[in-house]
Amino acid sequence: MRRALQLASLGRGRTSPNPLVGAVVLDATGDLVGEGFHKRAGSPHAEVAALRQAGERARSGSLVVNLEPCSHHGRTPPCCEALIAAGLRRVVVAMTDPDPRVSGEGLARLRQAGLEVIEGVAQAEAAQLNRAFVHRVRTGRPLGILKWAMSLDGRTALPNGESQWISGPIARDWVHRLRAGCDAVIVGGGTVRADDPLLTSRGRRHPEPLRVVLSRGLELPEVARLWDSAAAATLVAHGPEAPLDRRLWLDAIGVERLEMASCEPGPLLEALAQRGCNQVLWECGPELAAAALRQACVQEVAAVIAPKLLGGRPARTPLGELALSSIESDPSWREERVLRLGADLVWTLNRASPTVPHPASGQEHPG
Amino acid sequence: MRRALQLASLGRGRTSPNPLVGAVVLDATGDLVGEGFHKRAGSPHAEVAALRQAGERARSGSLVVNLEPCSHHGRTPPCCEALIAAGLRRVVVAMTDPDPRVSGEGLARLRQAGLEVIEGVAQAEAAQLNRAFVHRVRTGRPLGILKWAMSLDGRTALPNGESQWISGPIARDWVHRLRAGCDAVIVGGGTVRADDPLLTSRGRRHPEPLRVVLSRGLELPEVARLWDSAAAATLVAHGPEAPLDRRLWLDAIGVERLEMASCEPGPLLEALAQRGCNQVLWECGPELAAAALRQACVQEVAAVIAPKLLGGRPARTPLGELALSSIESDPSWREERVLRLGADLVWTLNRASPTVPHPASGQEHPG
Repeated sequence: MRRALQLASLGRGRTSPNPLVGAVVLDATGDLVGEGFHKRAGSPHAEVAALRQAGERARSGSLVVNLEPCSHHGRTPPCCEALIAAGLRRVVVAMTDPDPRVSGEGLARLRQAGLEVIEGVAQAEAAQLNRAFVHRVRTGRPLGILKWAMSLDGRTALPNGESQWISGPIARDWVHRLRAGCDAVIVGGGTVRADDPLLTSRGRRHPEPLRVVLSRGLELPEVARLWDSAAAATLVAHGPEAPLDRRLWLDAIGVERLEMASCEPGPLLEALAQRGCNQVLWECGPELAAAALRQACVQEVAAVIAPKLLGGRPARTPLGELALSSIESDPSWREERVLRLGADLVWTLNRASPTVPHPASGQEHPG
Repeated sequence: MRRALQLASLGRGRTSPNPLVGAVVLDATGDLVGEGFHKRAGSPHAEVAALRQAGERARSGSLVVNLEPCSHHGRTPPCCEALIAAGLRRVVVAMTDPDPRVSGEGLARLRQAGLEVIEGVAQAEAAQLNRAFVHRVRTGRPLGILKWAMSLDGRTALPNGESQWISGPIARDWVHRLRAGCDAVIVGGGTVRADDPLLTSRGRRHPEPLRVVLSRGLELPEVARLWDSAAAATLVAHGPEAPLDRRLWLDAIGVERLEMASCEPGPLLEALAQRGCNQVLWECGPELAAAALRQACVQEVAAVIAPKLLGGRPARTPLGELALSSIESDPSWREERVLRLGADLVWTLNRASPTVPHPASGQEHPG
């Protein structure tokens, strides 16, 4: 299973809206005869790839996979039928499908066909690996990561607005890699106006994450690096109040628009889930960040802290109003890790996301 | 020398205005025959204590000490004469006296009396151990440490003013130990009004550090824990504009007052140096902290960071206006260390303080 999880992780950042899946096939004597992982949406599922490699040697063997094989027709035929057709004797699975509508169906189909099914092996690691997919399936929204860079006195910019280069080159490279693991990167109009960011992974992800601007009234600069679609695709989401001339301008320069009934983080994430995003990165200013937190659109916080002192009463800080009444009133953040990045640190917190329930069917673990 | 430095550090927090000094005596065959350290101002110097323990066995032996022995009469007779009288053959010294007016005089006196003198052994460690003393002697001001506790989004309080318990019990205990290494703890009137702090080391230092309030106009609460002199002594420093009735009130409740020509961090530190403070801790609000930084009254910054998100535009942040024009314009802070304190981190930066110059006399190191 450890090898299956390792294989699964090779698809990181490219499989959305699908999960990360890896599979290995052992022959009847326990020798490894096939490996596969899901490379991108539309390409063969991990199980099929591993079975292809194994060929006839899969007969009476075992298949180990980190997620319950599918029993329904999607872009590819159901994996369960391929497993049964290959003549496998046993299937080992880490976790069931997180979609409660189909969870357990694949395993039931395999058992029905006479295969031995072992489930729950390394379930916690498997749930962690696919936490973004699981979150999206269960909530209808992609997992949200909120990232900011600040000085040791909690400032994201000087009073004069200067905000570039708070963190050093190693931390900036880390941010590019963070983007590479996300399907979209979201900012507000203020960030476009103040920083003119590029928001790409600098080639670490193909295609680059979708760059998303959430802008109620489309008060956006005529010239911005985000409008250059050669670097990456950009989507501008706006509210019904956006003036017609600004809409026409965006259409004219070839930037995709999305009109939403209300220009808020929650509806935006629902729209992005429907476009196949499992995980998004918020790289926005304090007011939008606070709104995203208040609307439960952030499951992970990554604060890059630089050993600098910026000071200044009007200087920008990471978060706007959260409406907390006491310091203990939002205790739901857990430390994930502290990383050293050159002179800087990044401190990551996460919020418990919906956990994968145990199968409620009373099926026993034969293993 | 390592043992001498170790002995010296046993006096930490109690020797001001004197330095930390430790000494060991070896007999003519190199066996350890005496140890001593400076326990507090007015008590015997380390060299004298070590020689007392060694007695006659010091004759033709060596004395190892982290600071140049004194050649002048202070509260105690000059150590040089005691070293010469003990019949030592050799003296090993880590660093010369930082006071340029007397630096090298003690070593010259010893050489003049025919003793072999080796200097500069572990000089960097010795300078680090006594950096507060060295800073005070060279600048006329105690070394300043600025400490704050903040959330991961850089807030020191909620918008409603709640600021207690941002950090956890282990970090708070660390702050008590930090206070125990300081001769005074300084706050502004705003902190007294908002937090009513106790500002003691909770018994880790005897006597407790002097609690200092810097308050231009003496707008201070009638009742405050700082006015209870049973816990520790308190000094209120104010400017010439302080109203007479507030002065009389402080005198009446028995709190010591200090009128300064200008109510600013720099003059306060000069007054505290004259009272024998080598090291002080700033535990003040953002405006006083920024003023202390601008007036070069801070050589070390200790930021306690808690994994909490407080948010809020009007919430308090650690530092007021520093008048920086670019992020690279104050690059003089160096990381000292990052410590884990339970769920919290403390990140310490320091600023290069005046270094101890090599003796300019052209004396050769015989060692």
